[in-house]
Amino acid sequence: MYQHTYLYNFTKNVFMKMGCSENDSAVIADVFLAAELRGHSSHGMLRIKDYFELWRSKRINTDPHIKIVHESPSTAVVDGDNAVGMVAARRSMEIAIGKAKNAGTGWVATRNSNHFGIAGYYSMMALEHDMIGICLTNANPLVAPTFSVSRMMGTNPIAVAIPALNHPPFVADFATTPVARGKLAVAEKKGEKVPFGFVQDKNGQPSDDPTILKSGGSMVTLGGDRIHGSHKGFCLSSIVDIFSAVFSGANFGPFVPPSVAYLPVLDKKTGEGTGHFFGAMRIDAFQPAGEFKAKMDEWIETFRSATPAEGHDRVLIPGDPERESEERIRKEGINLIPAIKDDLISIARELGIEFE
Amino acid sequence: MYQHTYLYNFTKNVFMKMGCSENDSAVIADVFLAAELRGHSSHGMLRIKDYFELWRSKRINTDPHIKIVHESPSTAVVDGDNAVGMVAARRSMEIAIGKAKNAGTGWVATRNSNHFGIAGYYSMMALEHDMIGICLTNANPLVAPTFSVSRMMGTNPIAVAIPALNHPPFVADFATTPVARGKLAVAEKKGEKVPFGFVQDKNGQPSDDPTILKSGGSMVTLGGDRIHGSHKGFCLSSIVDIFSAVFSGANFGPFVPPSVAYLPVLDKKTGEGTGHFFGAMRIDAFQPAGEFKAKMDEWIETFRSATPAEGHDRVLIPGDPERESEERIRKEGINLIPAIKDDLISIARELGIEFE
Repeated sequence: MYQHTYLYNFTKNVFMKMGCSENDSAVIADVFLAAELRGHSSHGMLRIKDYFELWRSKRINTDPHIKIVHESPSTAVVDGDNAVGMVAARRSMEIAIGKAKNAGTGWVATRNSNHFGIAGYYSMMALEHDMIGICLTNANPLVAPTFSVSRMMGTNPIAVAIPALNHPPFVADFATTPVARGKLAVAEKKGEKVPFGFVQDKNGQPSDDPTILKSGGSMVTLGGDRIHGSHKGFCLSSIVDIFSAVFSGANFGPFVPPSVAYLPVLDKKTGEGTGHFFGAMRIDAFQPAGEFKAKMDEWIETFRSATPAEGHDRVLIPGDPERESEERIRKEGINLIPAIKDDLISIARELGIEFE
Repeated sequence: MYQHTYLYNFTKNVFMKMGCSENDSAVIADVFLAAELRGHSSHGMLRIKDYFELWRSKRINTDPHIKIVHESPSTAVVDGDNAVGMVAARRSMEIAIGKAKNAGTGWVATRNSNHFGIAGYYSMMALEHDMIGICLTNANPLVAPTFSVSRMMGTNPIAVAIPALNHPPFVADFATTPVARGKLAVAEKKGEKVPFGFVQDKNGQPSDDPTILKSGGSMVTLGGDRIHGSHKGFCLSSIVDIFSAVFSGANFGPFVPPSVAYLPVLDKKTGEGTGHFFGAMRIDAFQPAGEFKAKMDEWIETFRSATPAEGHDRVLIPGDPERESEERIRKEGINLIPAIKDDLISIARELGIEFE
């Protein structure tokens, strides 16, 4: 078991060795460890190697000049200068929060960025300002539209964080697919099947094979099939893609660049890098913040008191599982599987830093 | 078959007879007929009777004074004064568009409103201004959160309209449940079962009985069950409810007032009336409008050219089915089933107007 502070310092050192400033490296480490603590280890230490390999392939810029290229009182477009995604994303959300201070709301579309970790992190930056935070991003294409077998979209997540008064905040952070990509990888490693409704084969037939993406298969959108509303999941995924990429001038849909170095750079571009979208809404642009937050407490209490279904003992509010995970992991520490540990030892050796 | 202009004039006359101004009645008729033309007859002439009965029970205000009660450069809260929903909603979206003209984006939360018809109508108002339009609303509680059997939420739809250049606009308009309530009513009338994954019984067990809502059952959220991501549908539905009701000061979740007069007014209130949320985003607050719309054409062409799955001949872009329905129905006319026709004849008689 690792203490999160140990992994935080290690991650920060890795990125400093790769040429990131101390400040940027601290931001990156903070997002990596937030993923581990919130129980989304698929976006945590597992991914250090991907960034390291991208850097070694000179496909990511560790000394970026991130700048606003277009703006209005409540909006901005940010060029991330091919930065590590966390650095471009945190700066963009800060700009959205700044816009909201003056205009009531702030909306930032970011291009020329890279994989940024967990979307929930950036939406939660708004909470301490008595704002609601929103974060969307597109991602590598793995998902087929309804009625199609073409991998056109990423798992394109949506995160929304809303503050309450005495209760913890409402934090929704979810992919617009039935299941995260990481769950397929876990089933594959264990040699298990997955439930029908996650993936389809190269002809569009339902499959329970988690390795099907390697033989022309694809993930499906939230809803699973047309009868159960997969076209609504396709709508959501499309909206995330358009807001993240068409607003910003990033690559959309199937042209989002790979977030791993073992996949080649794509021939066709429709913009610059990966795209994100951020929103910050000042609560008191709508209601006095105290009244709103007290009403959110009432909302949360109302939904928590819903009658559980047979076989369940409680109804969860968005954000509950991640908060409970964080409380546990802060005490117990973070467990890394041997394969990840080996990767980190090897990266540490190459960069001339410590890891054990 | 009825010509849509005949039904438009009839609907306008009905609401004028109920005391709505000529202008308000025209707005209401426009939204009703948009639902019929776009193939969402569940929100069309079928519902005239509900509004008529609410008016006769003095539960709706046909001479409202709709006003802004709170605002910032990019936001407003509107009190709908218990107006017919279409009137409060159209005015609110106009305010959002006005805010966007100055601040780049405009965001309006509306309270003290009623059922407003199809959400897509208001999102599409933004298109002619070279803006993206967004519309959310909460609704009568029929839907249970994941792990629960309590009816806590409506089918809480999301509508997003995005303009293109030479292609028709992207228009997503969907309930955050696998299926619309109307589909259950149709199956019930035909004496048919529905697929599993739409509703559950009073204990939370999956059911294929479309009448189960009458015996303590509930609809489920998009995703269907926890394994297939129903908690993501719950997140979406919650976000729609909080934006529509907590931002505005309307009733949230299980306290949304009935949109039909045969259900009694609820004892408990958590705000005023039904809540909506509207957004308008000026394209050129992010990108020159021409460049953005050309890029949307490229996005649409890319997705239209995705490879169809076995048994399908094309991939649909959000908005395609409704646009094709409108083209057909404008030519062929609108078919009303005898039960609806009888209702309209009876309403016409009571109000002293013509319908045949």
